[in-house]
Amino acid sequence: MHLQNAISPILLTPGPVEMDPEVLKAMSHVAESHFSQAFCNTFGDVLSMLRRLFRSEDPIAQPFVIGGSGSLGWDFTATNFIEPGESVLCLSTGFFADAFEMCLSTYGAQSKKLTVPFGAAPDLERVEEELRACRYKALIVTHVDTSTGVLTPLEPLSAMLKRVSPETLLVVDGVASVACEEVQFDAWGVDVLVTGSQKAIGCPPGVSIIMVSGRALEVARTRKAPPASWYASLTRWLPIMQKYENKEPSYFATPPTQIVHALHASLTSILSLPLEERFRRHKEKGDQVKSGLAELGLTPVALQPEYQSNGVTAFWLPEGLSSKALLSAVLAKGVTLSAGMHPEHGSKYARFGHMGYSVMGESGLRIDIGIEALKETVIRFYDSQRQSVAAEGYLEFTNQPQSITVGA
Amino acid sequence: MHLQNAISPILLTPGPVEMDPEVLKAMSHVAESHFSQAFCNTFGDVLSMLRRLFRSEDPIAQPFVIGGSGSLGWDFTATNFIEPGESVLCLSTGFFADAFEMCLSTYGAQSKKLTVPFGAAPDLERVEEELRACRYKALIVTHVDTSTGVLTPLEPLSAMLKRVSPETLLVVDGVASVACEEVQFDAWGVDVLVTGSQKAIGCPPGVSIIMVSGRALEVARTRKAPPASWYASLTRWLPIMQKYENKEPSYFATPPTQIVHALHASLTSILSLPLEERFRRHKEKGDQVKSGLAELGLTPVALQPEYQSNGVTAFWLPEGLSSKALLSAVLAKGVTLSAGMHPEHGSKYARFGHMGYSVMGESGLRIDIGIEALKETVIRFYDSQRQSVAAEGYLEFTNQPQSITVGA
Repeated sequence: MHLQNAISPILLTPGPVEMDPEVLKAMSHVAESHFSQAFCNTFGDVLSMLRRLFRSEDPIAQPFVIGGSGSLGWDFTATNFIEPGESVLCLSTGFFADAFEMCLSTYGAQSKKLTVPFGAAPDLERVEEELRACRYKALIVTHVDTSTGVLTPLEPLSAMLKRVSPETLLVVDGVASVACEEVQFDAWGVDVLVTGSQKAIGCPPGVSIIMVSGRALEVARTRKAPPASWYASLTRWLPIMQKYENKEPSYFATPPTQIVHALHASLTSILSLPLEERFRRHKEKGDQVKSGLAELGLTPVALQPEYQSNGVTAFWLPEGLSSKALLSAVLAKGVTLSAGMHPEHGSKYARFGHMGYSVMGESGLRIDIGIEALKETVIRFYDSQRQSVAAEGYLEFTNQPQSITVGA
Repeated sequence: MHLQNAISPILLTPGPVEMDPEVLKAMSHVAESHFSQAFCNTFGDVLSMLRRLFRSEDPIAQPFVIGGSGSLGWDFTATNFIEPGESVLCLSTGFFADAFEMCLSTYGAQSKKLTVPFGAAPDLERVEEELRACRYKALIVTHVDTSTGVLTPLEPLSAMLKRVSPETLLVVDGVASVACEEVQFDAWGVDVLVTGSQKAIGCPPGVSIIMVSGRALEVARTRKAPPASWYASLTRWLPIMQKYENKEPSYFATPPTQIVHALHASLTSILSLPLEERFRRHKEKGDQVKSGLAELGLTPVALQPEYQSNGVTAFWLPEGLSSKALLSAVLAKGVTLSAGMHPEHGSKYARFGHMGYSVMGESGLRIDIGIEALKETVIRFYDSQRQSVAAEGYLEFTNQPQSITVGA
């Protein structure tokens, strides 16, 4: 089982991900003025296509594409929709949910963090209780936390929120879910959806993508304190996005023109199939990864199947096999996986990304190769253990990834 | 005079600019983990090369490369080095200097703007007077304002500042100057230098590049109010940049990996020649553009030769020829120039970018073609005027760029 012309490791991390050759080609688009009609047409199409990806037909809602990382969407949320001192309820399902909460606090939000046991999803009743106890400006949920692969089902959460505290804004971090999990922006009453380009959307990293409901736009427009940020100011960017979507040039800051072209290529490809089909195939490949793990006796970090993402699977490693050793061994087989991402458990689990082109392209062969590499590695580890070889002796590969310092 | 295989207009705007084929190739780099050793090596080299470009050998100073537009550097400046209520003196030489001032105000700085007549550079004596009259935390200067092509000489300004108010931080917006004008970070005592990727550095847009002196790092570290931004927080990014420069992985937000590769390609090319040679060739080509304009009887917006940038020339159009008409006409000849950028004068002048690959690559042939297209167009306009054809009748090209809405 191998790919022809594979010149670099197959990238099966939860972002960046393998890309469609058309996306890569778009990245080397010749230099172009961001004021040219050709670029306006491309950017305009990107914004329209994002609406389709988000399942939104509300003309008042507005997508934004801004140069930066996906997490710039946190600043955008914090500075435009929440006023200093206002309360927000953050559902903590991992590193990224916690970072979003810290970002909100940085901008002066009074944040309450609902934590759950590692690998669990938020308990709906507990959230409801909290929403009844206090008036929150926004409920912040990380649809899929990249660090744990825990998926928080949005539809029931939204239904409960609309029932219990309809005025509370529903803010969704969809960085690791958009384009591999169903997200119904209009139907589920999402107010702010933030995502990035380099996960299931299948582009290189470099843009923050944000979808804002009409209601949230109104909140931003009528806020008392002016936004505390220049670059992340909704009122600055709104007319720019409206103009570009109308295929007219406009300027606030130079957009990353090549990444916009890459987005155009990936969104065109994504929307060439019914989204249901795309989500089905992500589930199928995700299930295949989970079956592979089960065969090895390994369990996902996300405790229950209904809370396991279809784009990234975090899984516990056998005692004695560190993520560092596992990553080295699979890398020697031409596959890049990711280590865990948690101050305490980081080295005890690993993450397998199964999203975008690796799932949708070439019949998902890359995922098959990844599962195979993982299986061989873990079986060999079990063998070495059975032969009473010390687990340390297993560290036979020299190209080990170094340890990663997270955050500051 | 023509380029082989020209498939799109020659881009002679003041950013984005034409790119070296090696840079374009780097943009389509295959997907790669930002934690991989290969990427760490590339990013580390980029940071080291930036030190050389900035003429800095101070190991305490630190370059930053953050996904976003060049203007994200304004937020970075505002939120890390200036505390709310502190006074900053902003030298206004155009649209971008004014926008930087607005950004600083957004974060609570007390800004004083020293304005000059349109096309003039700040008067050093007037700046000195102001610095003596009030204690400023920072002096903000836009080295070259992209909107006017006005260059403010840094060396004498810095010498005066160090004499009159040495504790004041020297903050330089080098978006339109770095890599086409001399910038001596250490020797001129610059504290914060912000720039972008898509001008004379010759990459696609998508990263904010910032160089910070040891003194400014200390200011950021010891500030009383915590930074008001998450994404633009120096304390969050500092350990990340230090790790990457040490070729070790680290994480705060996913870097735009492909643009980092493009930067690597462009910086490698830039540093393959002595910087003096690069600046000399930019001056030479810039002078050639100005001579061409003089032959046409056109004058630069920047009033005096010593305040005219070597990377962008803004020039007044003949009465009756709008920037819109000029741009259409040169576009029909395969060349993209830019309109003016000013609420009042925007349509009365145009901008010719002469930086990066268009100057350094293929013997600067693109600039020659641009000058030729400009000459033919203006001469034809003069002819049409002589023949008493109404200037309006000159609008014979249909592919006119539409008007641009600037800011919000």
